[in-house]
Amino acid sequence: MTTDIQIARTARKLPIVDIAARLGLGEGDILRYGADKAKIAHHALNGLTDRPRGHLVLVTAINPTPAGEGKTTTTVGLGDALNRIGKRTTICIREASLGPNFGMKGGAAGGGHAQIVPMEEMNLHFTGDFHAITAAHNLLAAMIDNHIYWGNDLDIDTRRITWRRVMDMNDRALRDIVVGLGGVSNGFSRQTGFDITVASEVMAILCLAHDLDDLHARLGRIVVAYTRDRRPVTARDLRADGAMTVLLRDALQPNLVQTLENNPALVHGGPFANIAHGCNSVIATDTALRLSDYVVTEAGFGADLGAEKFLDIKCRLAGLAPAAAVLVATVRALKMNGGVAREDLGTENVAAVVRGCANLGRHLENLRGFGLPVTVALNHFLGDSAAEIAAVQDYCARHGSTAILCQHWARGGAGAEELARRVVDMVEGGGADFRTLYPDSMSLWQKIETICTRIYRAAHVEALSGVRAQLDLWEEGGHGHLPVCIAKTQYSFSTDPDLRGAPEGHVIPVREVRLNAGAGFVVAICGEIMTMPGLPRHPAAETIGLNDMGQIEGLF
Amino acid sequence: MTTDIQIARTARKLPIVDIAARLGLGEGDILRYGADKAKIAHHALNGLTDRPRGHLVLVTAINPTPAGEGKTTTTVGLGDALNRIGKRTTICIREASLGPNFGMKGGAAGGGHAQIVPMEEMNLHFTGDFHAITAAHNLLAAMIDNHIYWGNDLDIDTRRITWRRVMDMNDRALRDIVVGLGGVSNGFSRQTGFDITVASEVMAILCLAHDLDDLHARLGRIVVAYTRDRRPVTARDLRADGAMTVLLRDALQPNLVQTLENNPALVHGGPFANIAHGCNSVIATDTALRLSDYVVTEAGFGADLGAEKFLDIKCRLAGLAPAAAVLVATVRALKMNGGVAREDLGTENVAAVVRGCANLGRHLENLRGFGLPVTVALNHFLGDSAAEIAAVQDYCARHGSTAILCQHWARGGAGAEELARRVVDMVEGGGADFRTLYPDSMSLWQKIETICTRIYRAAHVEALSGVRAQLDLWEEGGHGHLPVCIAKTQYSFSTDPDLRGAPEGHVIPVREVRLNAGAGFVVAICGEIMTMPGLPRHPAAETIGLNDMGQIEGLF
Repeated sequence: MTTDIQIARTARKLPIVDIAARLGLGEGDILRYGADKAKIAHHALNGLTDRPRGHLVLVTAINPTPAGEGKTTTTVGLGDALNRIGKRTTICIREASLGPNFGMKGGAAGGGHAQIVPMEEMNLHFTGDFHAITAAHNLLAAMIDNHIYWGNDLDIDTRRITWRRVMDMNDRALRDIVVGLGGVSNGFSRQTGFDITVASEVMAILCLAHDLDDLHARLGRIVVAYTRDRRPVTARDLRADGAMTVLLRDALQPNLVQTLENNPALVHGGPFANIAHGCNSVIATDTALRLSDYVVTEAGFGADLGAEKFLDIKCRLAGLAPAAAVLVATVRALKMNGGVAREDLGTENVAAVVRGCANLGRHLENLRGFGLPVTVALNHFLGDSAAEIAAVQDYCARHGSTAILCQHWARGGAGAEELARRVVDMVEGGGADFRTLYPDSMSLWQKIETICTRIYRAAHVEALSGVRAQLDLWEEGGHGHLPVCIAKTQYSFSTDPDLRGAPEGHVIPVREVRLNAGAGFVVAICGEIMTMPGLPRHPAAETIGLNDMGQIEGLF
Repeated sequence: MTTDIQIARTARKLPIVDIAARLGLGEGDILRYGADKAKIAHHALNGLTDRPRGHLVLVTAINPTPAGEGKTTTTVGLGDALNRIGKRTTICIREASLGPNFGMKGGAAGGGHAQIVPMEEMNLHFTGDFHAITAAHNLLAAMIDNHIYWGNDLDIDTRRITWRRVMDMNDRALRDIVVGLGGVSNGFSRQTGFDITVASEVMAILCLAHDLDDLHARLGRIVVAYTRDRRPVTARDLRADGAMTVLLRDALQPNLVQTLENNPALVHGGPFANIAHGCNSVIATDTALRLSDYVVTEAGFGADLGAEKFLDIKCRLAGLAPAAAVLVATVRALKMNGGVAREDLGTENVAAVVRGCANLGRHLENLRGFGLPVTVALNHFLGDSAAEIAAVQDYCARHGSTAILCQHWARGGAGAEELARRVVDMVEGGGADFRTLYPDSMSLWQKIETICTRIYRAAHVEALSGVRAQLDLWEEGGHGHLPVCIAKTQYSFSTDPDLRGAPEGHVIPVREVRLNAGAGFVVAICGEIMTMPGLPRHPAAETIGLNDMGQIEGLF
C-alpha cells in the first residue's frame, strides 16, 4: 500500500504564487518561504476587512478512539470536493507541533489522497511560528525573574508566579524544576517548570487575535503572577507586551499552502485542545472567509470538546457564525464506542456498530443545540462491511440526519463530492441559526455547569477545594464575562476515558481553575492534564535521518 | 544626525532574486524568505564544488574598547568599495543573536552608510537558523534524560553529563537549575543549566560543517557525558545525530541579503567568539568564494582572539587560505589603548594615540606571523584631528605598513575605495604565504602554550588542577590532533581586561578545558566566561514595540 508520505512526495505542487492567485492575491500580497509556502502579508490582510465573508463549515467528530476517525482527512477531502463542484473553497487547519514528532512518528496533514503539503516542512519548522511563540513566552518569563532580581518593585510573590517557561520538545525532565540556583548573581531560587509550546497562553492568544493591535492588547492582559496581597501582575505591568508583539509580528500572518489537488489551505496556529480551545487562528479563518465562497475548518478532539470550544470560544470571540457542521465517524470507531476491542475491529459486528451509534447520536443532538444543520460523514475504511455501513446510515436516517459514505482517502476530492453537495444544500438551505451555549453574562461557575450538564450530560459538577472562591475572585476582578474552556479527557463524555458510547448521570470534578486573561477564557481542569509530554523508550528521533537523496526518513 | 535604522529604512533594496542573479544564481537556486531574504538551496551548493575559489580577505581589529572600532562597518564598506572598483565581491558575516537584543539595544550589521539590510529581520528571527539550532541542541538534551529514564543502558553517570540546554534569551535564572523534580514520572533529579544558543556546540558545528554529511558526522561525535568509568558518551551513542541533522537541514543553507549599495552578503551562523571560534559559517564563506572574485569576511573581537581562531580553527579545518588581512583601528580606540578615559575621548591627544599604537603594532606583527600581508584601515570618526590621524599613519609607515583613512560610515563604498585598491594590490601582489600557528601534531598543552606565548606574549601559562591530566586523557582518546580555542577576555592580550596597549610577560592561568569533539576543537578557559547573559535593570524589551505604521521601535 502506498503511504501518506509516498503520496505526498509525488504531489504535483503548484508554485505558491499560483495558489495565492487562486485567492486573488498577487505576488506583493504574500511573503514566500521557499517555493511552496508563504505567509499572507499584514498589508494584504488589512485590505480585506471590508469584504463579505463566505460560508463557514465546521468538521468535527465523534469521540476519538485508537481506531481513528480521519477528521483532518475529511476536512481536506471536503475542501477539495467543494472546489471540484465549483465552490471556491479554502481549508483552515492547525499547525503541527515539532517536539512530539521526535517522540512518536509525525503526522500528515490529512491522509491518503486528501492531504495538505509540503508535509515535511509542516512537521518541522514550517514558517517559524511556534519558535516565535516560544521566544515571546520565554522573554516574558525572563522579564519576571529579572524584575525580581532588580528589586521587585511590583512586589511579586515568588510563590505565586503562574507563568512557566515553554519549549517545543517532549522533555519530561523540565516539568518540575528549580531555577535561580548558584548564588546572588543568578537571582532568587524558586520552583517552576516548562510546558510544551502549544500549551502556552501566547499560542491561544495568537489564535484568537484579530490583528496586531488586538494581539498587543491581549498580550498585555496576561496575568503572570500575584502579589503578596493577591493583586494580579500582568505582562503590561512588566512592560513586556510591546516586545512580545514585535516577536510575534510575522507569526500572526497566516500560512498559505496547498492540498494534493492544488487547492488553497491556511495552516496557522495550534493551541492545545484541552487546556486551550484547539482551533486554528481566527485571523486565518477570517482571511479565508473573505477570500472564498466556502471555508472548511475543523476543531480538536470530538465534538464535545472541540466543537463546543470552537463555537463557544472561537466563534463567540471572533464574531463568526458557522453555516453547517459535518460530523465525522468511521465504522471502526463506532464499533469501539460499541465495546469492541481494537484487535477485534477486523470482524464484522453490526450490533456493536449500532450500540456505538449512541455516541454519534449524542453529538448530533449537541450540535443541533447550537443551531447548526449537521450531516454525518462516514469516512470509508477498506474493511467496512456493507451491513455495517447500512446500519450507520439507517441510524442517522432515524435520527433526522444523513450519513454520507466518503472515499476521499482513496480517491481525493472525487470521493467526497456527495458530501460536498450535501454541505452546499445545508448551507444554501439557510438552516443555520447559530447560538452559543451560554451568554457572557452567566457566572463562571454556571458556565461550567452548563457545559458539563448539557454537553457532557453529567448529573452533577463538583468543585474541589478553593475552586469556587477563585472563580468569585476573578468575577470581582472583572473576568466574569469570559467563556470557559474545559480540560478533560477526549475519549469520553465523562472524565473516565474508558467510558465510551453515551454515558450520562456521571459526576464531573473540577480540580483546578486557571485564568487566561490574555487569551480571554477561564480554564477548568477536570482530571489529569499533561502539559509537557515525555519521550517513549525508543523515540522516533532514533530512526529519523536523511537518506542518500537528502529526503527525510523516519519522521512519518 | 541620521541613525543607522533611519538610513536602513530608506534603503532602496533590490528584490533578492536580483541579488542572487548578481551571483549567477537563478530563481530555482534560492529559497526565498519574503522579498529581501533567501537561502541558497542545497542543490545549488552541490553544483558549486568544482568551481575555483576567489580571494579571501579577513577584516580584523585592534583590541576592542568601549569607543568602538567599526569592524563590521569596515567589512561592509570594503565590500561595497571592491564592487565599486570592479571586483565582484561578496561579504560574509555572522548572524545576530535574538536574545541579547531584548537586553541592550540590538545592533545594526554595519553602520552609517555601510550596512547590511534588512536590519529588523536580521535582529529578530531572520530565517530561523538559531531556532533550529536551539531545537537540535535541546532534542539531544531530552534524549539524554530520556535514556536514563528508561533504564540507562549506556551507564551514563548523571554527575558527569556535560551537555546542558540552550535558549536564545538572556535569562540568568536558567544558568543553574535542578531538573527532574516531582517524582518518578519526571525522571531522575540532577543539577544542570541553560546557556544562550550562540554558545551551543551545535552552533559551532553548523559553522564548521562542509555539507550535510559532514554536519551529520560532526553531530554524532559530540560528547555529551561520561560513564562511571569515564568513557565518553556521544550523540551517536544516543542515536540523536540523524534527527538533529534533519532539524538543521534547512539552517545549513547560507542566507543571502544585501548591502545598502545592493551588493550580495551571506549572513550565516554566529558562534561565540570566546568559547567558540567566532566566525560565520564555512559553508557561507566557501559558497561566496566560488561565486565571487573577492570575499570580505571578519572574525569576532580583536585579532588576538578573532583572527587567531579564524586562521587556526576555521581556515585550518576548511582548507581556506586568506590572501590578505585588514586591521581596523580608530583614533578613539587607540587613545583608550593609550590610557585615555572614555569621557576624555573628545579632546585631541596625539601622545595617547602614539602610546595606543603599541596595541596596533602588536597585532600587525602577529598577523604577519601567519604569512599575511596586512594593511590598517583607520575608520574615520568626525572628531578625529588631523594630527591624530597623521600620528597613526606615521606609526604604520614606520612599522612597514600603511594606514588608510576610510570614510565608508559617512560615504558608503565611495569612502573606502582607497582601502579597496590597497587590498587589491596586496592580493594581486601575491604576498600571502599563509601558515597556521601550530601543526595538528603538536600536543594540546603545547598548542595552548604556543598561542599564549606567541600571540598573547605571556611569559608563562599555568594549568590549574586537573587540566593537564584531562588533556592527556583526550589525547589518549584520539583528540590530540584538534586545534585549541582559548576563551579569554577580549579587552587585553592578557587575562586582565584593564591591561590595554601591548602588555607582555604576564601569566595566563588555564582554569578549565572542554572537549568539543563534534565541532572539532578543545576549549581552554582562562578567566570567567559567561555563557548565559542576564537582562539589565531596564531591558530594551521594555521600550520595544510597534509604532502606528507597524514599524519596530526601540530595538535599535
